[in-house]
Amino acid sequence: MKGGSTMDENNNWRLADFVAIKAFENGVTIIGLTRGKETKITHTEKLDAGQVMLAQFTENVSAIKIEGKVEIYTKFGKITGGDI
Amino acid sequence: MKGGSTMDENNNWRLADFVAIKAFENGVTIIGLTRGKETKITHTEKLDAGQVMLAQFTENVSAIKIEGKVEIYTKFGKITGGDI
Amino acid sequence: MKGGSTMDENNNWRLADFVAIKAFENGVTIIGLTRGKETKITHTEKLDAGQVMLAQFTENVSAIKIEGKVEIYTKFGKITGGDI
Amino acid sequence: MKGGSTMDENNNWRLADFVAIKAFENGVTIIGLTRGKETKITHTEKLDAGQVMLAQFTENVSAIKIEGKVEIYTKFGKITGGDI
Amino acid sequence: MKGGSTMDENNNWRLADFVAIKAFENGVTIIGLTRGKETKITHTEKLDAGQVMLAQFTENVSAIKIEGKVEIYTKFGKITGGDI
Amino acid sequence: MKGGSTMDENNNWRLADFVAIKAFENGVTIIGLTRGKETKITHTEKLDAGQVMLAQFTENVSAIKIEGKVEIYTKFGKITGGDI
Amino acid sequence: MKGGSTMDENNNWRLADFVAIKAFENGVTIIGLTRGKETKITHTEKLDAGQVMLAQFTENVSAIKIEGKVEIYTKFGKITGGDI
Amino acid sequence: MKGGSTMDENNNWRLADFVAIKAFENGVTIIGLTRGKETKITHTEKLDAGQVMLAQFTENVSAIKIEGKVEIYTKFGKITGGDI
Amino acid sequence: MKGGSTMDENNNWRLADFVAIKAFENGVTIIGLTRGKETKITHTEKLDAGQVMLAQFTENVSAIKIEGKVEIYTKFGKITGGDI
Amino acid sequence: MKGGSTMDENNNWRLADFVAIKAFENGVTIIGLTRGKETKITHTEKLDAGQVMLAQFTENVSAIKIEGKVEIYTKFGKITGGDI
Amino acid sequence: MKGGSTMDENNNWRLADFVAIKAFENGVTIIGLTRGKETKITHTEKLDAGQVMLAQFTENVSAIKIEGKVEIYTKFGKITGGDI
Amino acid sequence: MKGGSTMDENNNWRLADFVAIKAFENGVTIIGLTRGKETKITHTEKLDAGQVMLAQFTENVSAIKIEGKVEIYTKFGKITGGDI
Repeated sequence: MKGGSTMDENNNWRLADFVAIKAFENGVTIIGLTRGKETKITHTEKLDAGQVMLAQFTENVSAIKIEGKVEIYTKFGKITGGDI
Repeated sequence: MKGGSTMDENNNWRLADFVAIKAFENGVTIIGLTRGKETKITHTEKLDAGQVMLAQFTENVSAIKIEGKVEIYTKFGKITGGDI
Repeated sequence: MKGGSTMDENNNWRLADFVAIKAFENGVTIIGLTRGKETKITHTEKLDAGQVMLAQFTENVSAIKIEGKVEIYTKFGKITGGDI
Repeated sequence: MKGGSTMDENNNWRLADFVAIKAFENGVTIIGLTRGKETKITHTEKLDAGQVMLAQFTENVSAIKIEGKVEIYTKFGKITGGDI
Repeated sequence: MKGGSTMDENNNWRLADFVAIKAFENGVTIIGLTRGKETKITHTEKLDAGQVMLAQFTENVSAIKIEGKVEIYTKFGKITGGDI
Repeated sequence: MKGGSTMDENNNWRLADFVAIKAFENGVTIIGLTRGKETKITHTEKLDAGQVMLAQFTENVSAIKIEGKVEIYTKFGKITGGDI
Repeated sequence: MKGGSTMDENNNWRLADFVAIKAFENGVTIIGLTRGKETKITHTEKLDAGQVMLAQFTENVSAIKIEGKVEIYTKFGKITGGDI
Repeated sequence: MKGGSTMDENNNWRLADFVAIKAFENGVTIIGLTRGKETKITHTEKLDAGQVMLAQFTENVSAIKIEGKVEIYTKFGKITGGDI
Repeated sequence: MKGGSTMDENNNWRLADFVAIKAFENGVTIIGLTRGKETKITHTEKLDAGQVMLAQFTENVSAIKIEGKVEIYTKFGKITGGDI
Repeated sequence: MKGGSTMDENNNWRLADFVAIKAFENGVTIIGLTRGKETKITHTEKLDAGQVMLAQFTENVSAIKIEGKVEIYTKFGKITGGDI
Repeated sequence: MKGGSTMDENNNWRLADFVAIKAFENGVTIIGLTRGKETKITHTEKLDAGQVMLAQFTENVSAIKIEGKVEIYTKFGKITGGDI
Repeated sequence: MKGGSTMDENNNWRLADFVAIKAFENGVTIIGLTRGKETKITHTEKLDAGQVMLAQFTENVSAIKIEGKVEIYTKFGKITGGDI
């Protein structure tokens, strides 16, 4: 098994929180940061305007950083990003 | 068992969140991204206008990217995609 | 045991989400897509107008694709398909 | 033990969802489809007008197809079948 | 142990759903259908007008068919049978 | 241990549903029907007018049949028996 | 240990339902009926007017019969006994 | 360990229901009745006017009998005793 | 370990109910009564006017007797003591 | 490990109730009383006016006594101390 | 492993309560007090005006003392500190 | 495995609380503080205006300190930082 995860690793993650992120401009960046002793970038995903990303916290990702004009749907309600 | 999963793998996923995606144009693309150390595309599904897809997070998929005009039904309510 | 499942396989699926699909025209197609590393069609069911299908997510099916004029009843409410 | 199930098989199914189906014409058909790798008909039940059937999802049945004029009572509310 | 059940069999059925059925005419029939690979009649109970039956789903019964004028009380509310 | 139950038998029944039955005439009959492969009468209790019976489903009783003028208090609300 | 119960017996009964019974006349009778294969009287308690009894279902008692003018407080609300 | 209880005995009783009893006259009597095969008095507590007693059901006590003018606070609400 | 408790003893008591008692006069007495086969006083605490005591049920204390002018805050609401 | 606790001791205390105490004068005293067979003072904390203390029940502390003018925030609401 | 924690230690603390503390002046002090037999200061954190601290109860910290002008957000609502 | 975490470490953290932090100026600082016997800075993340960070408490982080103009979305509601 290369580059993937074993089954046991993922075993109880089915109920992990997820969020939905809708891009309102091209080039929105979603950065996954690693869980564990060191906090590093594990993955960067680009969204174009109109695209929607649904993403769970995982065993590898405990923090998500979002750059650009977006609406983020969470259990706390809708959060807008990229505007101040 | 080829290309499928063993039983133990899936063992507790029955309660995983699912979302419903309704396409409002042809060529809507639903992309499953892998859970685990590397985040890669595991599957791409195409929807034509009017089609509806119900999809769970799984042991292999922890993120879903959606391109095109859609309505996405989630526990956070309805999210529209493909429009800004 | 042929073509069926062993008992252990199904052991905790009793609480899996189900949806109800009502066909409003002949030839509605309900396609079950496989859970696991590869996403393939595992079963196709045809509904005629007026027929109702109740279907659970299972250990083999983590995604369901629906074509044709339907009403889909889910925990998120009623979704119509086949119209845009 | 013939044609029945062993105890272990059924062990945790007590909380499985059930639905109630009321027939509004003779000849209503309720078809149980098998859980597992192959989806086949496991049982067909006929209802006459006025009869009511209460049926659980089981370890053998993960999908139910209903033909004819009926009211179906589910946790999503009442669904009518056989009319469009 | 004759005609009864062993203890282990019943071990976790205490929380199984039950329904209440009130007969509004003599000769109401309540038919228990077997859980498991074959669906057969396991028991038939007759009710006269005014009698009330409280019945759980059990390890042996996963479907119940009701004939005659009745009110059925379930967690989905009250369903009338025998009338259309 | 004669006529009683061993400890293990009853081990998890504490949360079983109970119902309350109030008799409105003498000679109300409450019949417990056995859980298990055969459904037989396990016990018959007589109530006189004004008496109240509180009864749980048990490992031996999965169905209760009630004859006579009664009010039955359940989690579904109050059901009257003996009248139509 | 005489006339009492061993510890294991009672081990998980702490959450068993209880009811409160208030007597409105002397000589109210509260009869505990045994759980298990035979249903027999295990205990009879007398209440005088104004007395209140709080009683749980136990591993020995799965049914309670109440004679006389009482108010019974249950999770279903208040039930009066001894009057019709 | 004399007159007390071993640790294992009490192990899961922390969530047992409790009630609060307020005395409105001297000489209120609170009688604990034993859980188990025989129902006997295990303890009698006297309250004077104005005193309040908080008491749990325990592994030894499954029924409580209260004599005298009291208010009893339970999860069913407030019950008055000693008056009719 | 003297006069304290071992770790295992206390192992699951974190969720035990607690009450808050506010004294409205000097000399309020809070008496803890032992859980177990014998019910004895295990501790007596004195409160002066204005003092507040927060106290859990514990593995040693299953009943609490309160003398004097107090307000007792419980999950059933506020109960006053020492007045009638 | 000196003066601290081993890991096993604390193992499941994360969900223990906590309260918040706000001092409205100097010299407020918060006294922790030991859980277990003997009830002794385990710790005394002093608060000055304006200071806030958040404190959990722990494996060592099952009762807390508070002297002085305070507001105590609990799951039962706000309780004032030090005034009568 | 120095100065950190082993994995087992932290194993079930994910759901521990947390509070949010917002400083309204420089020099706000947040003091963590040790869980266990002795209550000692384990950590002191300083906040300047406008800073926000989110802090969980942990296996080492069962009490938190806060000095200075703050708003504390808890499951009981907002508590102000540093003012009387 | 270097700089990452083993699987067992993260095993049950999927339901850990998360918060969302939106920056309203450049240079917002989010500081993760270590769980365990010593409280040290484990990671510092910088946010520019408009960026949003979603962050869970983890097995390594039990406290989070936030400097700068932000809105923090928590289960307690929205908290503003950087203003007083």
